[in-house]
Amino acid sequence: MTDPHSILSSINSPADLHVLTEEELGILSQEIRSQIIDTTSKTGGHVASSLGAVEIILAVHSLIDSPRDKIVFDVGHQSYAHKLVTGRLSRFDSLRQLGGISGFPRPNESEYDAHPSGHASDSLSVASGFAKAKQMSGTDEKIVALIGDAALAGGMAFEALNYIGSQQLPMVIILNDNEMSISKNVGALMKHLGNIRATHSYRDTREFVQERLESGGRMSNAIAEFGKRMKDSTKHMFIPHAMLYEQLGIVCTAPIDGQNIHELRETLKVVLDMDAPVMMHVVTKKGAGYEPAEREPERFHGVGPYDPATGKARPKGTCAPSYTEVFGSALVEEAKANPDIVAITAAMEGGTGLKEFRRLFPDRFIDVGIAEEQAVGMASGLAAAGKKPVVALYSTFLQRAIDQTVVDVSLPNLDVVFAIDRAGIVGDDGPTHHGVFDIAYLRMIPNMRVLAPSDEAELVHALHTALDLSGPVAIRYPRGAACGAKIEPARMLEQGRSRVVRSGDDVSILAFGRMVQNALHAADVLAEKGISTEVVDMRWIKPLDVDAIARAAERKLVVTLEEGSVAGGAGEGVLAELARIDDAAPALVLGIPDRFIMQGNTDLLLAEVGLDAQDIATSILKHLAS
Amino acid sequence: MTDPHSILSSINSPADLHVLTEEELGILSQEIRSQIIDTTSKTGGHVASSLGAVEIILAVHSLIDSPRDKIVFDVGHQSYAHKLVTGRLSRFDSLRQLGGISGFPRPNESEYDAHPSGHASDSLSVASGFAKAKQMSGTDEKIVALIGDAALAGGMAFEALNYIGSQQLPMVIILNDNEMSISKNVGALMKHLGNIRATHSYRDTREFVQERLESGGRMSNAIAEFGKRMKDSTKHMFIPHAMLYEQLGIVCTAPIDGQNIHELRETLKVVLDMDAPVMMHVVTKKGAGYEPAEREPERFHGVGPYDPATGKARPKGTCAPSYTEVFGSALVEEAKANPDIVAITAAMEGGTGLKEFRRLFPDRFIDVGIAEEQAVGMASGLAAAGKKPVVALYSTFLQRAIDQTVVDVSLPNLDVVFAIDRAGIVGDDGPTHHGVFDIAYLRMIPNMRVLAPSDEAELVHALHTALDLSGPVAIRYPRGAACGAKIEPARMLEQGRSRVVRSGDDVSILAFGRMVQNALHAADVLAEKGISTEVVDMRWIKPLDVDAIARAAERKLVVTLEEGSVAGGAGEGVLAELARIDDAAPALVLGIPDRFIMQGNTDLLLAEVGLDAQDIATSILKHLAS
Repeated sequence: MTDPHSILSSINSPADLHVLTEEELGILSQEIRSQIIDTTSKTGGHVASSLGAVEIILAVHSLIDSPRDKIVFDVGHQSYAHKLVTGRLSRFDSLRQLGGISGFPRPNESEYDAHPSGHASDSLSVASGFAKAKQMSGTDEKIVALIGDAALAGGMAFEALNYIGSQQLPMVIILNDNEMSISKNVGALMKHLGNIRATHSYRDTREFVQERLESGGRMSNAIAEFGKRMKDSTKHMFIPHAMLYEQLGIVCTAPIDGQNIHELRETLKVVLDMDAPVMMHVVTKKGAGYEPAEREPERFHGVGPYDPATGKARPKGTCAPSYTEVFGSALVEEAKANPDIVAITAAMEGGTGLKEFRRLFPDRFIDVGIAEEQAVGMASGLAAAGKKPVVALYSTFLQRAIDQTVVDVSLPNLDVVFAIDRAGIVGDDGPTHHGVFDIAYLRMIPNMRVLAPSDEAELVHALHTALDLSGPVAIRYPRGAACGAKIEPARMLEQGRSRVVRSGDDVSILAFGRMVQNALHAADVLAEKGISTEVVDMRWIKPLDVDAIARAAERKLVVTLEEGSVAGGAGEGVLAELARIDDAAPALVLGIPDRFIMQGNTDLLLAEVGLDAQDIATSILKHLAS
Repeated sequence: MTDPHSILSSINSPADLHVLTEEELGILSQEIRSQIIDTTSKTGGHVASSLGAVEIILAVHSLIDSPRDKIVFDVGHQSYAHKLVTGRLSRFDSLRQLGGISGFPRPNESEYDAHPSGHASDSLSVASGFAKAKQMSGTDEKIVALIGDAALAGGMAFEALNYIGSQQLPMVIILNDNEMSISKNVGALMKHLGNIRATHSYRDTREFVQERLESGGRMSNAIAEFGKRMKDSTKHMFIPHAMLYEQLGIVCTAPIDGQNIHELRETLKVVLDMDAPVMMHVVTKKGAGYEPAEREPERFHGVGPYDPATGKARPKGTCAPSYTEVFGSALVEEAKANPDIVAITAAMEGGTGLKEFRRLFPDRFIDVGIAEEQAVGMASGLAAAGKKPVVALYSTFLQRAIDQTVVDVSLPNLDVVFAIDRAGIVGDDGPTHHGVFDIAYLRMIPNMRVLAPSDEAELVHALHTALDLSGPVAIRYPRGAACGAKIEPARMLEQGRSRVVRSGDDVSILAFGRMVQNALHAADVLAEKGISTEVVDMRWIKPLDVDAIARAAERKLVVTLEEGSVAGGAGEGVLAELARIDDAAPALVLGIPDRFIMQGNTDLLLAEVGLDAQDIATSILKHLAS
């Protein structure tokens, strides 16, 4: 409950910030911090980055006229302060809950949210559209994009900067440099730049190339001169990234303290006046003002409920390991036996369970930063050179590299394993993060095989199988705790072969991934109604087990059940097989409907789309009765 | 026929180049040019870039030990000289023909082809994989990537450079700077850089920000000093792109003449020795050595058969306009009536039919360069600001921006029209260019609608409809000549409503796009066998016309027919609707099978996958008989 005498409680819209003194803005920033900690300690959330961005958001809103002026967040999980000053204080305790406030900006939640930011590196493209529209219409609204240092490494951000600079689009880019992307050792831009030019490799190469080209007069004077001037220029590059963006035509300001509202406002007053692109470099501290988050910024990037006094995580209800952990351990075991295995992540070392792999095999661990296209493209080269790359990505982020999966990996039929975490409903993060499209976008790709293990024991076998097969193989598994199944030594699964996990005569449920558990529960419900239900763990989304489908076609009803989009999904693949069978039983296709799924508890969301056991049983009964 | 006394006819593998003198290499380069012109004048092909790259390819192969050493082409249509010196001279006259030599490198065609290069900007990622594998294995093979200036603007190339520089991966990047990407005015890197820093905008902004921050002592000395040093540094930036890549830790050499074998070899000898990344800047001339191509490099980028003496195109067999042309004209008409319409292309102004649009509405025409992610992300911002962006891309290249289509456009349900050219089989360019996946990857996206006009008259209506609807709408249409249908004034098509184009009682063919024509011909064949066939032009892939499907379900057989992947395609969508109907007729799903389709004449390829009229009729007869 917010103190009714606080400044925060008096802020109904960002216009109210315009009349505050900088001292009052400073007090407000601390009130907002307290509110963020108070709420997220109960709901969980993206704490560290939201705390770091409080002053930036207040400074911007105190000087612009939102919603006419636009602020576009890059990965909007830093936007909590923005939410609190745009009329959402009273509902803030519903953060990330079903029917509550999203953890990201959502235009359908508030007119102050310019864009549903969820995937990194898109803010500059979107803001460039706003800026171009302003230029076309001859209007004078301000356009501000707020982007973190790690997101600048994404190719999409570079494409946008290239366009923005070349067209001199009038907009302010605030570079929120918190000196730490989500996971520490990303190959990202700013982290390494200082070091690169200091390394022997770069310096030696520059010297050596220069000398060799000059020696013996084999090259013209112009070329020798080029190298000398390049050397002179590099001496001036004391803040490398700024020089890089100035090359693209974007004026960069010197780094300022992102927790200092006065400095922020003074600089903003200047750059907001410009009729050209300016990048304002702001240095913030992740978790600023909350000691536990400052100490452990990576844990507080995205965190579950915690004790606000100590920052300690509240005990979870489960003791089963997560699929992520099981994958990480299994990959370590495989890597011990096969020295060709290489693991690739895109700034999600922890999120994809690769910490231990990295510790044990640092030379075989690759973090490309937020750069999924590079992750998959590089896997292509590694595989062509005889390595066995495992690309570990979240389902929703692999969407950034579908073309590479098709053209660079599957067309040449290379041995790349895609470990697709967060497949299915992911819960609190909502529509930008649910992994509900991968089945459709992988099924369409020739040469691709797709496994969907039904529990953690199956995941171990699936990984072993994928690594053994030639050509591209994907394994999709969900976020969160697994089922507590007993892990057994890894073994090969026969390609395109399912297993019956419950026998039955009336109905056959062909289930994929963790939906096998729901199918088993639904079968229990159906048994009470006198309906005998077979449950098949299909194991393979592609190739499908045509024999299992043929057997199922002999029952009264075939049901397909998957945690992915029905449109283009595995169920439709089953229908295509059924269409080849004479007098096949009717079919019922269950999965994620054709709409975006909002945020909330995963079980509640699965119920909301009709995929909990009771709903599944009800759907089947209804179909049988019709 | 190649002169048996030529040097070219004596080259059986690139090792044979190692013993040639530079004078002999020079003669060989002219022989290769003649061969390329001789062959492509009959087959068509990518003439301009292939002619420009002859000397680079000879110089590289004369110094490396392929296939142990790797050369990775970026967009491999510049690789004809490579093909001619790697044992494919005798089969070169089958270039781009069915069963012949591909117009791009293909690992399954030759061990000298390291990667199936077809989509721009991927070579550096793939080469980085080769370089990393080499580092891991402790081997010493050379890794060379050959990339054009336009492709460097793609985000994927930047992601790769960022990684290569940060890790100091040992490889040579040859920047083939032909001072012209495919279409002239792309917003690409190198084109504008020289100008940007010369523009008033950038200079004024830099001066003004500096002055304002210094004035009144509102900022510290450190910040004032920053600006001064930045100004000093920019004076040194005489070859801007090189400074940019040096920022990333990649040593760049001065530009050399890419048609001079001696200069190329001397520089290569130096950079191939480096144990770090080096970018070798080579300036070439598109079409070099063939006057018609030098004069019209854009036309000779990808060209049909031509008279080798004059360069004039050989007459085509058709007089119907292309779908591309009809789209371009229709968009111009729409734009005259609606000032909010904005057209966006990604370096394909001519290829997507936007030349006239650009001429008439230069302020409403946007070319982002080879940067599909930016094209779609920017459309999101433009639409959110009230504009009506039309993103015109080839089907295969929209694969680069699927995530943006999902997250940045469809989630916020913005009014963006996707004009998807080259949908379906595209012919000579082969598997990297066929547009056979878009139906699957668009169907899965909530809020998306997809139109597939069956002829050019329908395309005009489809565009009109897409522009009128709210939310994202895609229109897919094929490459090449349309049907000669009479164009009528644009009108609205009812959403999700098909039209019957031929009545019949026994079989109903639900056809999408130009397959409607094939369905009509198939119906003629079936009529001769006494089978009465209805043909439905479905018009909409999404939403499907459920009433038409219900009517079709009452016949003896429902046939779906589409020019796209069966897996995840519209046919499976029809099956899902049929599954909801009691006692629906059996169904036959026809489309592109689950394998990559090679290059060749489009009609031959359609026959090869069973989609010509005769095959369709045969499939239907077989199904009816079973």
